[in-house]
Amino acid sequence: MGTDDLVGRFGLARVLEPPGAFPQAAWRLDATPVVRPDELLVRVERLKVDAASFRQLSTAAGGDAERIADELAAIVADRGKLHNPVTGSGGMLVGTVAEIGDARVGELEPGARIATLVSLTLTPLRLERILDVDLVTGQIGVEGTAVLFGASPYAPLPSDLPRDVALAALDVAGAPARTAATVRPGDRVAVVGAGGTSGLLCLHAARRATGPAGAVIAIDRAASALADAAATELADAVVAADATDALALRESYLGAAGSEADVSLNLVDVAGTELGTVLITRPAGTVLFFSMTTSFAAAALGAEGLGRETTMLIGNGFMPDRGAVALAVLRENSVIRGIFERRHAA
Amino acid sequence: MGTDDLVGRFGLARVLEPPGAFPQAAWRLDATPVVRPDELLVRVERLKVDAASFRQLSTAAGGDAERIADELAAIVADRGKLHNPVTGSGGMLVGTVAEIGDARVGELEPGARIATLVSLTLTPLRLERILDVDLVTGQIGVEGTAVLFGASPYAPLPSDLPRDVALAALDVAGAPARTAATVRPGDRVAVVGAGGTSGLLCLHAARRATGPAGAVIAIDRAASALADAAATELADAVVAADATDALALRESYLGAAGSEADVSLNLVDVAGTELGTVLITRPAGTVLFFSMTTSFAAAALGAEGLGRETTMLIGNGFMPDRGAVALAVLRENSVIRGIFERRHAA
Repeated sequence: MGTDDLVGRFGLARVLEPPGAFPQAAWRLDATPVVRPDELLVRVERLKVDAASFRQLSTAAGGDAERIADELAAIVADRGKLHNPVTGSGGMLVGTVAEIGDARVGELEPGARIATLVSLTLTPLRLERILDVDLVTGQIGVEGTAVLFGASPYAPLPSDLPRDVALAALDVAGAPARTAATVRPGDRVAVVGAGGTSGLLCLHAARRATGPAGAVIAIDRAASALADAAATELADAVVAADATDALALRESYLGAAGSEADVSLNLVDVAGTELGTVLITRPAGTVLFFSMTTSFAAAALGAEGLGRETTMLIGNGFMPDRGAVALAVLRENSVIRGIFERRHAA
Repeated sequence: MGTDDLVGRFGLARVLEPPGAFPQAAWRLDATPVVRPDELLVRVERLKVDAASFRQLSTAAGGDAERIADELAAIVADRGKLHNPVTGSGGMLVGTVAEIGDARVGELEPGARIATLVSLTLTPLRLERILDVDLVTGQIGVEGTAVLFGASPYAPLPSDLPRDVALAALDVAGAPARTAATVRPGDRVAVVGAGGTSGLLCLHAARRATGPAGAVIAIDRAASALADAAATELADAVVAADATDALALRESYLGAAGSEADVSLNLVDVAGTELGTVLITRPAGTVLFFSMTTSFAAAALGAEGLGRETTMLIGNGFMPDRGAVALAVLRENSVIRGIFERRHAA
């Protein structure tokens, strides 16, 4: 792969400011809706704004839907992408393939409905209208266009699942897929944040991967989330604990599970949960950090300070299954699908 | 292990502010030189200040050794540990075991000379005098006392290596040990920052682990560092490149190596090298990030944006060998030992 291929694969020709940056690091992208050979042009119908970004926008706008819409429009007009300058985060989108670059003919058909599996922080976006803002889910109905680069992953939207349910699952698809690839039969698996969107999918993926010989322990601090996790009946134990209190987490976990985990999944969207997660994992075990609030230094120096050689993985959101594992959970598990329909369906 | 054991193992009883914090997160520790049952008391002779911390202190003091000493003394007096409040980093120390807690009798003898393998950011420290400040190496001659907790790793200082040479190697000991545990025979290994202290040790560890069937590619941007890496004759190719320029790094790397690496080691102490390191690694390959400048989000979202499922590891500094792999490099490799003696010996 020469440099020319990289330009198309990674969208380098779409960067306006600063020159030479990659699209995510760039301040401003060129969102002109004309496809280059390596690109797809998408007619956008819905944005799912990242939770951290939506919380910030909503707070700044005093919870007013119209002001949130104005601010979203202003960011996209200014940057050529929905890259919240305060939180640094984006989201994903759903739309219909409108045009296919010459180099990609045959890959899929125009008219195919897809969800992007790449962050909006690097997706060229142009908005014509904002139709509605869902204050609960952070989903935004829009008219507009987006560009996908050669290397930008996407998934066809399944026809057997409600759109917003599929969207919620695809948004966090890397977590259950990486869980499935990491957990071995017989492993004891701790799921920290088990009642959240990615937590429920990971509970199912972990249970499937570890099998009847293994154990799955569901941990969450919110009673309602924990009740949902318990309702799946996937966990051998369900633990109410705040992962920011490392000692309390360890005590509650050990009280229920008996011994440290072989693999722990951290899916908690609050800062300061690295030490606690390391402390419920056996020293030669593995922690997968999926939360964007994870601090590299807190994890590295924290484990060192505890004298533990814990293998710690950065939860890369891309997996080659491109969402298949996450969608399979919704098809295999009617309880989780029911919870997703209650939480996410419009 | 009950909560009581944890208190001694992790030094929780040494935390003064804020109550309930772990020693690293704490603002202030109790450095009183009286051992608890699970502790060691160390008579300190030398501190090795973390590079980022020493650079900050030196810049703030206009490069004046006496002012650096004053500032070091002030931090330790204020916090009960050498935890630079600006950089958040620490360092390590060398000293002699003065007292051994009741629960640890027999573990080693009083009078044993040791280096700590745990950060000074969580080591209770009291300084009586600062004797000298080495502006080149960031090593500080002192008189004082430190406390090691039950779980705090340390290594006996070897008698066959100069103290400051051993200290330099032990300071980064986790990197070569984890390299040795990760690289498999026949792997193609890229070492980004190969000419630095940890880079040279990792070059040797990578060469040993991959064997003659594998390949090792040494990358550095500094000509002098690269010359040292080349002098080891451990690398199949030596590449001059700036890892902050992802595309240029990839082009230079591929020009020399031919194909992407199975395992890449990032040992570069500057920010913004995550994308470049991912781009020289094959999508199903592994990156070990050892640099404290690594951004969790830049790595996770960066790989996702490139559509690469790269396995990315947080470079936890602790390994159960407690420095043995790093010291073995200096014994096995006279070229690297010579470079260390030139760079680090007093």
